Amino acid sequence: MRPTQMIAALLMLLVSAPAFGQAGRQFAGEWDVTATSSQGTAAARLVLSVAQGQVSGTSGPLDTNMYWPLEVTGAGNGDALLLTFSFDGEPIGTARVAPSGEQLQGSGTLYGTPVRLVASRPGAPNRPEIMHRFAPTEYQLHFSSRIGPALVIAPGDTVVTSTLDNEGRDAQGVFRAMPGNPLTGPFYVEGAMPGDTLVVRLVGIELDRNSAHMYGRQLDARALPSGYAQVADAEADRAWRLDREGGVARPARPGERLTNLAVPLQPMIGSIGVAPPGNQSISAGDVGFHGGNLDYNRISAGTTLYFPVFQPGALLSLGDGHAAQGDGEISGQGLETSTAVTFRVDLIRGGAPRQPWAEDDREVMISGIGNSLDDALDMATANAALWLKDRYGLSDSEAATFLGAVISYDIASIVSGRPHVVARLGKAALDQLGAPARRNE
Amino acid sequence: MRPTQMIAALLMLLVSAPAFGQAGRQFAGEWDVTATSSQGTAAARLVLSVAQGQVSGTSGPLDTNMYWPLEVTGAGNGDALLLTFSFDGEPIGTARVAPSGEQLQGSGTLYGTPVRLVASRPGAPNRPEIMHRFAPTEYQLHFSSRIGPALVIAPGDTVVTSTLDNEGRDAQGVFRAMPGNPLTGPFYVEGAMPGDTLVVRLVGIELDRNSAHMYGRQLDARALPSGYAQVADAEADRAWRLDREGGVARPARPGERLTNLAVPLQPMIGSIGVAPPGNQSISAGDVGFHGGNLDYNRISAGTTLYFPVFQPGALLSLGDGHAAQGDGEISGQGLETSTAVTFRVDLIRGGAPRQPWAEDDREVMISGIGNSLDDALDMATANAALWLKDRYGLSDSEAATFLGAVISYDIASIVSGRPHVVARLGKAALDQLGAPARRNE
Amino acid sequence: MRPTQMIAALLMLLVSAPAFGQAGRQFAGEWDVTATSSQGTAAARLVLSVAQGQVSGTSGPLDTNMYWPLEVTGAGNGDALLLTFSFDGEPIGTARVAPSGEQLQGSGTLYGTPVRLVASRPGAPNRPEIMHRFAPTEYQLHFSSRIGPALVIAPGDTVVTSTLDNEGRDAQGVFRAMPGNPLTGPFYVEGAMPGDTLVVRLVGIELDRNSAHMYGRQLDARALPSGYAQVADAEADRAWRLDREGGVARPARPGERLTNLAVPLQPMIGSIGVAPPGNQSISAGDVGFHGGNLDYNRISAGTTLYFPVFQPGALLSLGDGHAAQGDGEISGQGLETSTAVTFRVDLIRGGAPRQPWAEDDREVMISGIGNSLDDALDMATANAALWLKDRYGLSDSEAATFLGAVISYDIASIVSGRPHVVARLGKAALDQLGAPARRNE
Amino acid sequence: MRPTQMIAALLMLLVSAPAFGQAGRQFAGEWDVTATSSQGTAAARLVLSVAQGQVSGTSGPLDTNMYWPLEVTGAGNGDALLLTFSFDGEPIGTARVAPSGEQLQGSGTLYGTPVRLVASRPGAPNRPEIMHRFAPTEYQLHFSSRIGPALVIAPGDTVVTSTLDNEGRDAQGVFRAMPGNPLTGPFYVEGAMPGDTLVVRLVGIELDRNSAHMYGRQLDARALPSGYAQVADAEADRAWRLDREGGVARPARPGERLTNLAVPLQPMIGSIGVAPPGNQSISAGDVGFHGGNLDYNRISAGTTLYFPVFQPGALLSLGDGHAAQGDGEISGQGLETSTAVTFRVDLIRGGAPRQPWAEDDREVMISGIGNSLDDALDMATANAALWLKDRYGLSDSEAATFLGAVISYDIASIVSGRPHVVARLGKAALDQLGAPARRNE
Repeated sequence: MRPTQMIAALLMLLVSAPAFGQAGRQFAGEWDVTATSSQGTAAARLVLSVAQGQVSGTSGPLDTNMYWPLEVTGAGNGDALLLTFSFDGEPIGTARVAPSGEQLQGSGTLYGTPVRLVASRPGAPNRPEIMHRFAPTEYQLHFSSRIGPALVIAPGDTVVTSTLDNEGRDAQGVFRAMPGNPLTGPFYVEGAMPGDTLVVRLVGIELDRNSAHMYGRQLDARALPSGYAQVADAEADRAWRLDREGGVARPARPGERLTNLAVPLQPMIGSIGVAPPGNQSISAGDVGFHGGNLDYNRISAGTTLYFPVFQPGALLSLGDGHAAQGDGEISGQGLETSTAVTFRVDLIRGGAPRQPWAEDDREVMISGIGNSLDDALDMATANAALWLKDRYGLSDSEAATFLGAVISYDIASIVSGRPHVVARLGKAALDQLGAPARRNE
Repeated sequence: MRPTQMIAALLMLLVSAPAFGQAGRQFAGEWDVTATSSQGTAAARLVLSVAQGQVSGTSGPLDTNMYWPLEVTGAGNGDALLLTFSFDGEPIGTARVAPSGEQLQGSGTLYGTPVRLVASRPGAPNRPEIMHRFAPTEYQLHFSSRIGPALVIAPGDTVVTSTLDNEGRDAQGVFRAMPGNPLTGPFYVEGAMPGDTLVVRLVGIELDRNSAHMYGRQLDARALPSGYAQVADAEADRAWRLDREGGVARPARPGERLTNLAVPLQPMIGSIGVAPPGNQSISAGDVGFHGGNLDYNRISAGTTLYFPVFQPGALLSLGDGHAAQGDGEISGQGLETSTAVTFRVDLIRGGAPRQPWAEDDREVMISGIGNSLDDALDMATANAALWLKDRYGLSDSEAATFLGAVISYDIASIVSGRPHVVARLGKAALDQLGAPARRNE
Repeated sequence: MRPTQMIAALLMLLVSAPAFGQAGRQFAGEWDVTATSSQGTAAARLVLSVAQGQVSGTSGPLDTNMYWPLEVTGAGNGDALLLTFSFDGEPIGTARVAPSGEQLQGSGTLYGTPVRLVASRPGAPNRPEIMHRFAPTEYQLHFSSRIGPALVIAPGDTVVTSTLDNEGRDAQGVFRAMPGNPLTGPFYVEGAMPGDTLVVRLVGIELDRNSAHMYGRQLDARALPSGYAQVADAEADRAWRLDREGGVARPARPGERLTNLAVPLQPMIGSIGVAPPGNQSISAGDVGFHGGNLDYNRISAGTTLYFPVFQPGALLSLGDGHAAQGDGEISGQGLETSTAVTFRVDLIRGGAPRQPWAEDDREVMISGIGNSLDDALDMATANAALWLKDRYGLSDSEAATFLGAVISYDIASIVSGRPHVVARLGKAALDQLGAPARRNE
Repeated sequence: MRPTQMIAALLMLLVSAPAFGQAGRQFAGEWDVTATSSQGTAAARLVLSVAQGQVSGTSGPLDTNMYWPLEVTGAGNGDALLLTFSFDGEPIGTARVAPSGEQLQGSGTLYGTPVRLVASRPGAPNRPEIMHRFAPTEYQLHFSSRIGPALVIAPGDTVVTSTLDNEGRDAQGVFRAMPGNPLTGPFYVEGAMPGDTLVVRLVGIELDRNSAHMYGRQLDARALPSGYAQVADAEADRAWRLDREGGVARPARPGERLTNLAVPLQPMIGSIGVAPPGNQSISAGDVGFHGGNLDYNRISAGTTLYFPVFQPGALLSLGDGHAAQGDGEISGQGLETSTAVTFRVDLIRGGAPRQPWAEDDREVMISGIGNSLDDALDMATANAALWLKDRYGLSDSEAATFLGAVISYDIASIVSGRPHVVARLGKAALDQLGAPARRNE
């Protein structure tokens, strides 16, 4: 008998004895459970049923890395509930929880690690939508569940706030935070749980000063073949002037050849995302399945983004505004500036996409983030195919036919930690597929 | 003394003796020279000067791979001219040529390989532009200097011709050639020499039948991450109907979900290019610096392409028409069909781009072809930077600033031998740079 | 009725009328057939059966690109045989062949293209093995079916010959061919047909001079990250001296720091392969499924290579000897020199590997050639898994377990057209799998 | 006047007034300074000089992302020192510090962010080397400066400890931590500061149980081309038995074909590294410049590793032992097990390598970690060239010649977050370069 089998046998003896009476019913149903340990917080949906005094059910992963979905059994112990968790038949821990107000609270040991458990009934509070005016006083350089919420909001709420430039300066050009895409947030969205979809509509992005900067001394080496030599002009100036009435940006001190250059303003948010899984703390300059430094020049006013939720409250943060940006961000920067931004959040229960996607009036834009452009394109294509199959019920062959004929790609960024490619599908073509089987809301 | 030095010394004895008189002047100046051997034809510009009876000069590479530019010395021998060729000081061969009409003709040994030399004065014939109506009777599956010209044309000429579909069927759906993008051509353009730029304006591309086909059973594996599984529908049909009046294509026998799909027609040429260097014979389904299977959905009527010339006459070929194609050609095919095509050729002396580029009314489109998407983007960016520097005299820093702010990318194809990315520059932005230092014509 | 259907119906009328009598039996069985057209030679195995005076069967692809396997029907016409070829039910051509000695000869039209057909009974001549001493007088810069054989040999024969250095110099340092890996060959191996496996055992590779050269002014840009700057020493010398008795190579004129450098000699062949499919002509400096510029430092004496055959006679060529070479060939060259080489060929009917593989006493070495190192590793791994499954009957899971625990990789070259990775399996581990289900010969 | 200029002017007024007398001398010299804020800890070397009562100097970066080296000026204020920090002439903050024992302590604002400053004189305590026996009670799933030290050690100390298997089980097979390469540590090494080099010699790695597991149901998709289909055997078992006396591992329940498979034991540590820069928290399953999940089968007893230090104390952690592992870890796992491990740490002041490197008796092994295998090889090659130039004073051309002739590569892992390639240089060849200009210690 292996040790794990021995423990399992002992646990079964323990939990099988005292069966619930009627009172056990209070434990039945769906719970949002969080397991907090020295490793951080793991959160999951826990579903319990009670039959003949025995509790059984399933839970999403409660290890910090969110690897392993769990089987659950339970039995009563006075007011409390003794729970046993197993993965693939092998017991991985136990806990004791008891009612406390509308919650269950308690503690136990998962994978040899002491945890505190709190379970609540799912759902956000039912209250009118609020317009929050949020003036940040502190900024964050990372996406992480370890950072406490700056503001608690609810689905349907709108937030009016501001972002610093990539180096930490505000609308007056004064340092308010350290360089490296300091983020406004995180915003805790009530009711959001791992597996849900966070919806963020960018209602408005206003430029709030007349200056921007873009490194332009040379192109980023990642945009050029090995061996391509550039002669960087040490005098080259990175300052741009933003003509907000005229709707264009101009180099502040251009050389002769660029004297007449006037780039149309297209205000956008460069870095936006949610807290990643586990105890990870990911730089605001990196990009991933949680979003982050997406640096896509169509994340602008009128665009709605859909993020997977990995942590309770989602923990949305945003920053790194650009007055304009070419594809790929190939000089390493957009026209970096501060912004006044207004966004509205919503929540879709479940349906977490693998990677973020977005839409505006004309197109659906599905992100692929990978280790190389090839990987990123492959991810974008797969995400688009899965999106089509999920929403419109297409077969693989129908998805191939549709995508082969109508897909477009954008290269969003190649300098933001990892390459980001976007698959675009026109809404005119999508409309030809009939009504989606599943709507976004 | 090394053997090569010994040979060099002997050759100098040989060629230094008999000096030219006045007659030597006929050899002076610029020649287009071709060196034909068992290894194929190498061609280059040869520039000779005659001073005090001694001939000296330089030649482009005359090895088949076009690796090594040569130094040339010469001396008279009766009517004839004895030439000695060296690379980096090491002699690599000799030849004897004599006047024959307006040419020089003769033979010799380069790199131990017997060659026949023919030299002509550069330039195309001076005659009125011709409109050729060319009905092909034979098609080619390769781009190669080994394939004899189907038609000789001159700069300024226009050709009205037709192309088969990718599998060899014509406007009536009848097989006229073997599958694999059979090409119409090659067209020999008089005066074109290695290092020149061939200009091809696509005046018109008409669909000449009501049917197309696109493989759509599943997406090409190259567009998807490893491990992504598709269930291919064995019944999925690849036939499309082209509604040429309505301007849309529809699947001929769609399943329920695709019943209303109507893709706008955008006739394009998939494979177009010139003969590659040396004795290479490259499949019409592969892409490279010579062009070839570019599969870019903006190579359509109104687009002008610029190709590097690698062989005398350039040897332009084209085929593989698509009625429409999504970015990346990710199902492995466009809407494959036959076409009626009209194009006009021109020639720019010198200025061969590293890889093909194109333009239409709105944008300049600069190709990058690489082994991966990352390589292809790097090539496209470098080609765009070089193009800007060459035409507008920008410094590296100015090019970085301009490109960082305004570049766009298209992913043309990922299934055509090697990935093809296109860097796009808007003409409105280019106009802000002032008059180009160098015009396209 | 579609045109193709009409043609099919007409053809059936034509061929169904005159049935064979007994005489038809001569056509039955297996044939090696070649179809020669303006597009080059396509070759395949043709298998015919005769029943009730009707001929039917199958053929490998007879289009130049070898895409489409064919169905065949036939009927008698006097002495001759009228054949109709179809792909997937759609007729693609007809031909008329008649006996001529031991062959069938005739002509027809495939895919609208006139072809000449010759069919022979499979197999090489039955004669004693021969030791050929072959002194080349001409060299080739390409792998191609368009190049006529330099020597016809048979399975079991041994060839003693020599190769030039990569720039065309022989054992005396004299130019005998143009630069670019000039090849000795091609050798036509009797009986070899597409789908077969050519076995080449490198019996001996002797260095035949005391000098080599390796470009060492800087590393190839493909081995370095973008933006890595090197200062190339213009005085850096590429000459090496080979101390054949001492078994080491030394830089001929080293700077102070490399004075004592002595690299062990490991003579190897850099470029070796067969003619590729179709009418392609691939540079001796490129690598592919046909082999070519493999540049792997374990292709040395004692190694046996296995190539897929794509053309009748396989058309083996080899050259580009190195006295030694680091992994990856990252300066762009090995220690380039001429060699005296002895090899023995054999033929395995069928079993063509997707890409070349090799073995020596200790290990099996399975090549993966791809567009990137990632692609190349993926190909090598897949080829190794297929090799294991084919030879030892492993399941996918068993292959995964075996490979996960024992595989090693070499990075052969990254500068030879496309990256080349080698998967290595120790013979000691392979022996633990028991007797192979299929032997190499 | 820009706001930042105005602030600068004000600050200058402020700090220029009260000059130091003799007492200011106590501030002169080199300090290890840490700046702790809500963004985490930034640490750097601060060098101050005092002249005529004015303090000036330089500091390494004190922003969390360690982007910007700083200029420092200072002036006295009673006992205290008022410091002003600037980057590239633009002031970014001020602080006030005062002596407290052997330290300076104080606070200020950098980039608008409140910070607490502590400065100590550099160097580790001078005491005898200690052998620590460390029995871990808690394990970590991340490399991060946010995790407090498990043990403080000093250069020269040796640690005898143990690691769990990748899923959290100990030598008895009992869960002690959550799955995902739980790490033993972090070990705080006194005196280690950003820019230093941490030396870790693996004295011994003992297997401490008789079992391991390796996922072997199928190969990781990242090791195979897109579209390669595997049939996973649902019954395939991942258990292996370790025969520690016999020195081999065998599948515990093999199918018939693998009955005799016996893989030589080669105990190794899969995940080992230091805390990354800033407030990042990187999963123990990911790899980066800080080391981490290197998964290289030559990180075994007798190997010495060199890591860059990014945080005070370095914060070394290790885990994820393998009983053996093929190159690339292509099934996604090695033979995962727990270990008893002994290591010794040392510290080299400065000289932080860009990425980790290692050595054993025979070879130097220089890691390249990149987003693709191509990137990883490029990094490994560049790191090797820099290593050679730094230690042996080679020119770029000499490094190219040496590496071109002698480099070998290993593919360590392709499944550990990012690809890891190792460049190997034999010590026999290195010895030919003469004495290194700089020794490892």
